[in-house]
Amino acid sequence: MTTTLERYLDERRRLVEQALARLFPVRRGFREAVRYSLLAGGKRIRPILTLAAGEVLGMAPRVTMPFACAVEMIHSYSLVHDDLPAMDDDDVRRGRPSNHKVYGEGTAILVGDALLTEAFGVMARGRGVAPARVVAAIEILARGAGEMGMVGGQALDLAAEGATPTLAAVRGIHARKTGALLRAAVCVGAIVGGARPAALARLTAYGESLGLAFQIADDIIDALQDGGGDGRTDAALEKATYPGALGMDGACAHARRARDRALRAVAPLGPKAGMLAAIATHVVDRAEAAVRQASRNG
Amino acid sequence: MTTTLERYLDERRRLVEQALARLFPVRRGFREAVRYSLLAGGKRIRPILTLAAGEVLGMAPRVTMPFACAVEMIHSYSLVHDDLPAMDDDDVRRGRPSNHKVYGEGTAILVGDALLTEAFGVMARGRGVAPARVVAAIEILARGAGEMGMVGGQALDLAAEGATPTLAAVRGIHARKTGALLRAAVCVGAIVGGARPAALARLTAYGESLGLAFQIADDIIDALQDGGGDGRTDAALEKATYPGALGMDGACAHARRARDRALRAVAPLGPKAGMLAAIATHVVDRAEAAVRQASRNG
Repeated sequence: MTTTLERYLDERRRLVEQALARLFPVRRGFREAVRYSLLAGGKRIRPILTLAAGEVLGMAPRVTMPFACAVEMIHSYSLVHDDLPAMDDDDVRRGRPSNHKVYGEGTAILVGDALLTEAFGVMARGRGVAPARVVAAIEILARGAGEMGMVGGQALDLAAEGATPTLAAVRGIHARKTGALLRAAVCVGAIVGGARPAALARLTAYGESLGLAFQIADDIIDALQDGGGDGRTDAALEKATYPGALGMDGACAHARRARDRALRAVAPLGPKAGMLAAIATHVVDRAEAAVRQASRNG
Repeated sequence: MTTTLERYLDERRRLVEQALARLFPVRRGFREAVRYSLLAGGKRIRPILTLAAGEVLGMAPRVTMPFACAVEMIHSYSLVHDDLPAMDDDDVRRGRPSNHKVYGEGTAILVGDALLTEAFGVMARGRGVAPARVVAAIEILARGAGEMGMVGGQALDLAAEGATPTLAAVRGIHARKTGALLRAAVCVGAIVGGARPAALARLTAYGESLGLAFQIADDIIDALQDGGGDGRTDAALEKATYPGALGMDGACAHARRARDRALRAVAPLGPKAGMLAAIATHVVDRAEAAVRQASRNG
């Protein structure tokens, strides 16, 4: 049976796919390399969060869409750069050769640069949104993606490789590497939707806790795929992860607490925030289901 | 004797240096790698053009400064990424080891990403400028730096390496790789200064022609440093350059025509555009002096 959430995610994902494809129409050469990574599928959870946060304020997805696309373009650029040999050196992304394996490292660097630059251009060209809101959205997204956010987290991660992670180190790295962009995705939707300070604070708190739940869930699922199921394999320890620092049960408990904080943050916003609540629940349910499955198999 | 132009360039350069250093105060770790490239000196011609264009409209450098800094941050990121082994593979930049030689390729990629992201954040945090102007400045800078501008030009250059350049190919590549950001630097200052359509069109035309003059002058000086003075060395041919396509005399004549178009564009703006005119003249004078010097030596 398809749930309301699944239907919502699926519909919004299709809208995002269409909008992204329209931003970069087919053209040969460099554009092809950009499209290869940007239109490679994925759950599109970040732009959906932007749309959903806007919808809490009554803003139509059509108006929020350029901002949602910008969030996804920044996510996509970060994947292209992270896969480079000098970074995580991943040959495969979403079941296909990563961008630099197909187009070469130089082009992959430029694809990331183009997606990052155009993300800001797309927001600046957003129509039907007051300029003051556009500026605030750009500011919050630059902060989430920049030196104190995603890029800074990636730099910390690069510097920490090989070291044994402490929980404090894990929190610091992942809050910036993954959490900052997820939080920004929610905030951008809230700002474009014209959230007043009280609602913006609630949605920011939601984004913060959802970002944490999301990264713990991701770490859990990655650790289960990499290793034996207890999360304390060499691969998991090699990089700072929640299962690596807390063990699998501890990581699950941590994710549930983050989910509960996310739910409490948006509860006063009423039924319009129902989809945001459902997303937070879904993220943690998915990780717990993976753990149960692994323990049955192991 | 110090000319008025030299004094102006020197004073504005110091203001830019101070503002950039304030944006990234000293901190250990990743920040150090960012500062290494951003605060490595250079003529700062792009941010000075932004300030000078704003001054034509009566806008104080203090107000235009965040936008000027953003332009320089984008220029700086492009140098860090261009120097990478997968791109131009340069070990030296401004007489010092390039960023990736000091901090490693992974960090250099992230330094570029951080500078590019923060450039937009700095503009969004610019105070004392109407949000509609901030949005328009962000839009024009993203366009100049992005897929249809600088990054697109770099991608074309990467694809063209090894091929024999035609003038049309040279124009197309360099107009985007170098010209687009210089043009945007001028336009950003004009927009922040509140230029009306007629003045904006004049300043845009100036930026377009100055960008062309600048890239021809740069090619000429590079070719003289690389080779024997006739601009037709292997090194010059390896990449698409103006001396490579037109010969040294042809390139100089082309630069003079671009300078003259730049001067004609801003002449109706009166004495307030004097510095912009002097900059255009200076750029071409410098290249011609280098050619004369080389022919005396050769």
